[in-house]
Amino acid sequence: MTPEFADNLRVVLVSPRNPLNIGAAARAMSNFGFTHLRLVNPYEVAFREARSAVRAGAILTGAVEYKTLAETVADCSLVVGTTAATKRELNHPLRRLEYAGKLIRKALPTGRVALLFGSEKFGLGNEDLAYCHWLMRIPTREEHGSMNLGQSVAVCLYELIRASKAPTPEPRKRAPSEDLERLTELLHQALEVSGYMHASSTETKIRRLVRRLDLNAHDAEIWLGMLRQILWKLGPPRS
Amino acid sequence: MTPEFADNLRVVLVSPRNPLNIGAAARAMSNFGFTHLRLVNPYEVAFREARSAVRAGAILTGAVEYKTLAETVADCSLVVGTTAATKRELNHPLRRLEYAGKLIRKALPTGRVALLFGSEKFGLGNEDLAYCHWLMRIPTREEHGSMNLGQSVAVCLYELIRASKAPTPEPRKRAPSEDLERLTELLHQALEVSGYMHASSTETKIRRLVRRLDLNAHDAEIWLGMLRQILWKLGPPRS
Repeated sequence: MTPEFADNLRVVLVSPRNPLNIGAAARAMSNFGFTHLRLVNPYEVAFREARSAVRAGAILTGAVEYKTLAETVADCSLVVGTTAATKRELNHPLRRLEYAGKLIRKALPTGRVALLFGSEKFGLGNEDLAYCHWLMRIPTREEHGSMNLGQSVAVCLYELIRASKAPTPEPRKRAPSEDLERLTELLHQALEVSGYMHASSTETKIRRLVRRLDLNAHDAEIWLGMLRQILWKLGPPRS
Repeated sequence: MTPEFADNLRVVLVSPRNPLNIGAAARAMSNFGFTHLRLVNPYEVAFREARSAVRAGAILTGAVEYKTLAETVADCSLVVGTTAATKRELNHPLRRLEYAGKLIRKALPTGRVALLFGSEKFGLGNEDLAYCHWLMRIPTREEHGSMNLGQSVAVCLYELIRASKAPTPEPRKRAPSEDLERLTELLHQALEVSGYMHASSTETKIRRLVRRLDLNAHDAEIWLGMLRQILWKLGPPRS
């Protein structure tokens, strides 16, 4: 996600009551690279406390307070409400976060998007929902759908920045086959010397065993060193 | 995600200090359908407080306390540590959450998986990391990588249960074309009667305009009703 893209998101907390939750929302925003926080009609004491907290950063300092939701979202071209409800009697389309995230990512480059989170106790009210183009829900269990405010902000923002395809893991430097082969030989010798086995027919089994270790280059060298030491200690092969 | 699948996950908090975070971890687990919480060497007061909280549910009551991490993960066949670090000097593979989640989902059906979260202040120590098969990190900003404990549990568990493909939204009942055509006619009539336009050549423009509204079946009926009313009020077309 490019910074300009993230810069178009407005995280909107509607009537938050708990300073810890306001702080947690701001922290998640900072973790995931979003900076614009808006509060509608917050409980004053909570907002003050959140702002004066030791680790309150630039996001809380820059948070803007509004009296009404209408003013808060006036400059936003897409307004999305979050809800724990699985069904709405309202005529709002309700989308799962995975799909909603996709739509929001599409909308962000061309206009401001407001993401609304309701108060801890009541969520978004019907009057708030009327300002939304559509609603989204985090796919929680029906039996316990209601999430903590700070956690739900974190999960929604994560969905916005997560890579849409699972990124390929860093290439790991695998051990070259010659090292694995040398390891196979040394292990075979060590087992023979120790009297674990005699028949050379088992060498193939050991070869497969070593391959299954799936060693990286560095670890293969360590194993080679250890086996050499053990072989030295074991002494020459019996004849 | 099937319940049996989720049942194989063990969320492990290593030396947590804050009762609110222990409670938040348990709440996120409940939201996303995971039940087995393990605590290694928690700050006793914090664990007691979290358990006695008003909304502490079955997960906290059933949480198991261990003295050492070795005991905690003894029955787990995959142990994954979470870290805010972007690079590790340790020889552990470090995977982004999106990819890590995929691997964990793959491992869960065949054995228990432990997901380790370190203490609020220090994260997982080197001794803890030694018990891990590999590490994963939430893709936070490098400048502010460290997440709140409860929020990071929520984000990781969400990644485990999220649909790997954005689910198709619920089919919405679109307005049938005959209704849209009727709407076009009524609007056309209303505009003509109002003197907005005379040339019937603009009917095509109105037709396209109405199609772009992308109405659902219910709303189309409402619009038809409103237009009929307006037309009635407007009176018969001028001749």
